[in-house]
Amino acid sequence: MKVAVVGIGHGKFGRRDDATVQELAFEPFRAALLDAGLAIGDIDATVIGSVPEYHKQRSLPGVVAEYIGMNPKPTFLTEAACASSSAALRTAWADIKAGLHDVVAVVGVQKMLELSTPELLALMGRVGDVQWESGFGTTFPGYYALYARRHMHEFGTKREHLSMVSVKNHFYGAKNPNAMFQKEVPLEKAMGARMVASPLNLFDCCANADGAAVLILASDERARKISDAPVWIEAIGSASAPMSVLRRENLTSIPSAVQASRDAYKQAGVGPTDIDVADVHDCFTIAEILAYEDLGFCERGAGGKFIEDKQTYLGGKIPVNVDGGLKAKGHPVGATGTSMAVEMVKQLRGESAQRQVEGAEIGLVHNVGGIGQYCFVTIFKR
Amino acid sequence: MKVAVVGIGHGKFGRRDDATVQELAFEPFRAALLDAGLAIGDIDATVIGSVPEYHKQRSLPGVVAEYIGMNPKPTFLTEAACASSSAALRTAWADIKAGLHDVVAVVGVQKMLELSTPELLALMGRVGDVQWESGFGTTFPGYYALYARRHMHEFGTKREHLSMVSVKNHFYGAKNPNAMFQKEVPLEKAMGARMVASPLNLFDCCANADGAAVLILASDERARKISDAPVWIEAIGSASAPMSVLRRENLTSIPSAVQASRDAYKQAGVGPTDIDVADVHDCFTIAEILAYEDLGFCERGAGGKFIEDKQTYLGGKIPVNVDGGLKAKGHPVGATGTSMAVEMVKQLRGESAQRQVEGAEIGLVHNVGGIGQYCFVTIFKR
Repeated sequence: MKVAVVGIGHGKFGRRDDATVQELAFEPFRAALLDAGLAIGDIDATVIGSVPEYHKQRSLPGVVAEYIGMNPKPTFLTEAACASSSAALRTAWADIKAGLHDVVAVVGVQKMLELSTPELLALMGRVGDVQWESGFGTTFPGYYALYARRHMHEFGTKREHLSMVSVKNHFYGAKNPNAMFQKEVPLEKAMGARMVASPLNLFDCCANADGAAVLILASDERARKISDAPVWIEAIGSASAPMSVLRRENLTSIPSAVQASRDAYKQAGVGPTDIDVADVHDCFTIAEILAYEDLGFCERGAGGKFIEDKQTYLGGKIPVNVDGGLKAKGHPVGATGTSMAVEMVKQLRGESAQRQVEGAEIGLVHNVGGIGQYCFVTIFKR
Repeated sequence: MKVAVVGIGHGKFGRRDDATVQELAFEPFRAALLDAGLAIGDIDATVIGSVPEYHKQRSLPGVVAEYIGMNPKPTFLTEAACASSSAALRTAWADIKAGLHDVVAVVGVQKMLELSTPELLALMGRVGDVQWESGFGTTFPGYYALYARRHMHEFGTKREHLSMVSVKNHFYGAKNPNAMFQKEVPLEKAMGARMVASPLNLFDCCANADGAAVLILASDERARKISDAPVWIEAIGSASAPMSVLRRENLTSIPSAVQASRDAYKQAGVGPTDIDVADVHDCFTIAEILAYEDLGFCERGAGGKFIEDKQTYLGGKIPVNVDGGLKAKGHPVGATGTSMAVEMVKQLRGESAQRQVEGAEIGLVHNVGGIGQYCFVTIFKR
């Protein structure tokens, strides 16, 4: 059973003191219904992608489903750290493929900034292995700094390469009205920012944010009735890797990303060179460089050169994160997977305006959870 | 595609200071593998059912999947409050029906007692609607006390009826080696316990606990190869209801339970009188009485009389919670759904010893999330 995206909605990412978490969800949910031309009664179920512990509200899907008007239809939440809403997308996709539902809304939503920075840090500092690692101060920037340092050591990747990723993503983010940061950042500024976890500085790190993005999926038959331009989900690959970096074979690759992408390529019957446009998980600039290599867009170790040659700009070999990426859009963790998917659907529909990849037919989304303990790779086709 | 349970494992519920959350998960996971006669490489994926915020470890599925040896296979977590692992069961069932996997392990796990009571209460007090209700002190006992009070008012249900549920469940819990409380409780003791939220006293409330229970599901073809006695999942119904009790039509029914059970009966082509044995969500004694009525085991309002007549004991019209229920087993929220399912599979295999319902062929599990914002009803058949 083929499954398509028939409706999309994307809220403004950033500090959203104007909205509760359920209000954040409603904004793109309504937009997605309008986009699909559907009434609320047409939706058979919702799947909520979010990391629940960053909210004051517990039992999040209950309050979201009530507020957006989806009672008494089934709902629950999926969590896979920063890939939570890719897990939700996969769940809805499987539900439709299994014949359990015809039309399902996937709601990626996260309100992080109602917590104070110390509260957030106390939670995020325990996304690594609590028993063996967190006690040593392995926060997210710390982990990704290890990856960056090792990549520099092994492959000669330069500090400039990291900043070049940041420059690109802010360049495109400046053209994305939903992005948290809509300003270009020159290379000198990106290079000169204050250090967070050496070698990663402020402009190498994405920002915590509030936000939501919604997809409506439908079965083959329903999709063709609902939409003149359904975008097909050709494949969703997923894999896991050890939480503990001590158990990783190396620090220059996210093994779950390699595995998930190979799985997705196989399902879809395509390879890296067939991909016209990609959104990858740039929680830190080094993560985007690893993604180029893990996904097979360039050779292992050549990621620095790949951005230096502007191969991931519009007009390059494969445009990556031309929506601004996590870096410029902000990273409301549970909403990031659906945000990437919404942007990819726009690209394949030809609706990305100044950021459009001309004639894009096949798009890829790479969404990593935590420090690589999960990865989901989704391939879309118009 | 039919899906069967081919392996089960159930850890000891209670205060488990001897085990981390990943160790809790490993115990029944290993038992389920042995039960199924499978090696770890035979499992295609894991789905973790849990409420993540009750743990100190974040990104729970990552640490569980690593510890139980399931890398690099896909994993993520599902959350629906106290029905989290029924959501996981449904996810694994859908994955197999969709043809994405052949064999999936469903891991319900929860370690609650590493948090202090005030920490737990601060979290659990926000499972109701935070914006409009929690501020009025609507904790779980408070909500269920409202249901009990209204049921007494409308139908003449007596305080004794509540205690009779407790007496039955402790009677069977005393025979369940995995139960947190393995002592019978006489009616006078159950009646005379100290008040928690009037009319609910201590013996009307289940206890927070640590624990885990695991199911291994397989596709039709694989199940017949793996097991001589697969237990089939005939149906999983699920539904939602408003978080806010202000939006409920009445307080004498859980609307999501009515909806989910009707859905499940329809899928399975059976009715309440076809069910030989059931496990229902007795987080409070009143919840079991509501379940009798919501599931159609007795008429609306007749639940008190139903337990008074011992219709839910072995030998009665329909034995309910003859494993001890949440009341005696303890309620490690994320593990409760899989615990119920494991007990039901045992009944249908004829392995429940002193608690066996003779000749049981069709079993039902009713797992409610929160105060009824979610309900999952699963029907098993041998």
